[in-house]
Amino acid sequence: MARAWHLKSRPKGKPAAADFELKEFDLPALADGAIRVRNLWLSVDPYMRGRMNDTKSYVAPFELGQPMEGGAIGEVAESKADGFAVGDLVQHMAGWRDEAVIPARGANKLPNLGIDPQKFLGVLGVPGATAWFGLLDVAKAKAGDMVFVSAAAGAVGSAVVQIGKMKDMTVIASAGGADKCDYVRSLGADRVIDYKAGPILKSLSAAAPDGIDVYFDNVGGDHLDAALACARNHARFAICGMIGGYNETESPSFRFIIRVIAARIRIQGFLVTDYLGRLGEFYAEMAPLVANGTITSRETIVDGLEAMPDAFLGLFEGANIGKMLVRL
Amino acid sequence: MARAWHLKSRPKGKPAAADFELKEFDLPALADGAIRVRNLWLSVDPYMRGRMNDTKSYVAPFELGQPMEGGAIGEVAESKADGFAVGDLVQHMAGWRDEAVIPARGANKLPNLGIDPQKFLGVLGVPGATAWFGLLDVAKAKAGDMVFVSAAAGAVGSAVVQIGKMKDMTVIASAGGADKCDYVRSLGADRVIDYKAGPILKSLSAAAPDGIDVYFDNVGGDHLDAALACARNHARFAICGMIGGYNETESPSFRFIIRVIAARIRIQGFLVTDYLGRLGEFYAEMAPLVANGTITSRETIVDGLEAMPDAFLGLFEGANIGKMLVRL
Repeated sequence: MARAWHLKSRPKGKPAAADFELKEFDLPALADGAIRVRNLWLSVDPYMRGRMNDTKSYVAPFELGQPMEGGAIGEVAESKADGFAVGDLVQHMAGWRDEAVIPARGANKLPNLGIDPQKFLGVLGVPGATAWFGLLDVAKAKAGDMVFVSAAAGAVGSAVVQIGKMKDMTVIASAGGADKCDYVRSLGADRVIDYKAGPILKSLSAAAPDGIDVYFDNVGGDHLDAALACARNHARFAICGMIGGYNETESPSFRFIIRVIAARIRIQGFLVTDYLGRLGEFYAEMAPLVANGTITSRETIVDGLEAMPDAFLGLFEGANIGKMLVRL
Repeated sequence: MARAWHLKSRPKGKPAAADFELKEFDLPALADGAIRVRNLWLSVDPYMRGRMNDTKSYVAPFELGQPMEGGAIGEVAESKADGFAVGDLVQHMAGWRDEAVIPARGANKLPNLGIDPQKFLGVLGVPGATAWFGLLDVAKAKAGDMVFVSAAAGAVGSAVVQIGKMKDMTVIASAGGADKCDYVRSLGADRVIDYKAGPILKSLSAAAPDGIDVYFDNVGGDHLDAALACARNHARFAICGMIGGYNETESPSFRFIIRVIAARIRIQGFLVTDYLGRLGEFYAEMAPLVANGTITSRETIVDGLEAMPDAFLGLFEGANIGKMLVRL
């Protein structure tokens, strides 16, 4: 018997522990082309909140009473698939559980680069690729640009800071609290804003008196409004996430939205899934930099499958520095 | 002595008649390279509201106690400039007055195409070019697209409707009241929404059950939020104006802003002044269509310089169908 977290009820606003249920379930027999994987690392990500709603979105909603899904790293325990041997480490999407039987085509073998496997859920996984394509392709950020990034101590934001500095941008980063700000500063951010210390509009105006060229948005709300207020002409905003709004029932208001006209601001939402065909570009440049320590990353690790809902809920309370992971 | 409207005080929120003052002023002597112009048509445009604030924007604020400016068509009454003869019709920016002395380089002689001169303040002027470049270049609208345009009975919107139909798009248009809706329908719009008849979100959802590819925004606020709600994947929004917000002191709220991410919406503000170098493209295609009646336009005409502030204020009360003009 394997164990998996099931969605018991669809949360309204902020999810509660009672919305999740850990249940045993039977693994199917291993068909040809399938592998059985024992999970080692499970990912919790803000986007999963959207899958808990019963609304049409870019990924299907979680089904009530069914095992939930998400990024995971596991070890092959049994294989009926060519090219997959017992002991291989794979990245796949059957997370929120300790064990899974999956088609091998849904699993990616980790390359042997001497990199800790959990990095493939973080700086070399979806969050890292999100930072890479969002900053360089969506926002078209380039050397010399004044870049503002929110949630800069998170998995995506910490990669944005480092990619920006590596590409000779000036990086203004916001994070909540002294520990996170220290971490972001250690990554090389030129100016760091503790958004809990005062209104973000005031802090950003002071940090960027001549305005910003790029905003990499992970939080929405007041941060987005402040970026609108401070945008230079032809500024580009890559909208990656709005974690501040995922659990909100009130509509955010934007005092400075009218500036999109005079400053010719471009606001572009994006999903990293649109870049899956270009992941090779990302790996080719990032993997060596991660392997040699030029690009670093941190994790906030929670132990044990039982703690997974708490790890997920912690994302919305700022409990993580870097990538939030569950270790089995 | 000439007469010009001067800005007497900077309005807060909605301007009032007392913010404007009609005063006589002396015309300067005619220097070499200058012309004296007797104005025939004066333009009032929503963007002028922004120039009444003392804030940095894409055009300098009007100065208190000085003659105001704006688009105008006049007849040359005296010339010390090569190529300009008495009787020539010119378009220039010394509006809000009956007569002006200007450098000839700031004036454009109207081509002799048998087109009424005031059209060069409307469908063949700034509003027409705004519609053209906003729809085709900013929003990249193309044949087959589902296009939504607001303020569709206005100078810009009515051109957007006709350009869209000419280029084989499906056009959903919103306007306020039965007369304007009838007008927009007569221009060829496929579906017409009277936004005064009910919530725009409900009306747009019904008019575009499969969503919209393009939104040409002239009004902001609830219309923009409804467009966010109804946007298809990879929808493009050209943000031309937010007339609903120019006089507001409350911040608009956007319930559906989060959809920019899942639907990968691109929101792009623009100014037609960025397209001055490409006006030739616009004239080459539009002038023959206006001359032969394929593209039509209407004007709401107010007579007399004295009535100009009323004409301007009428823009914010929906008093105009098509281009609002003052005739001298």
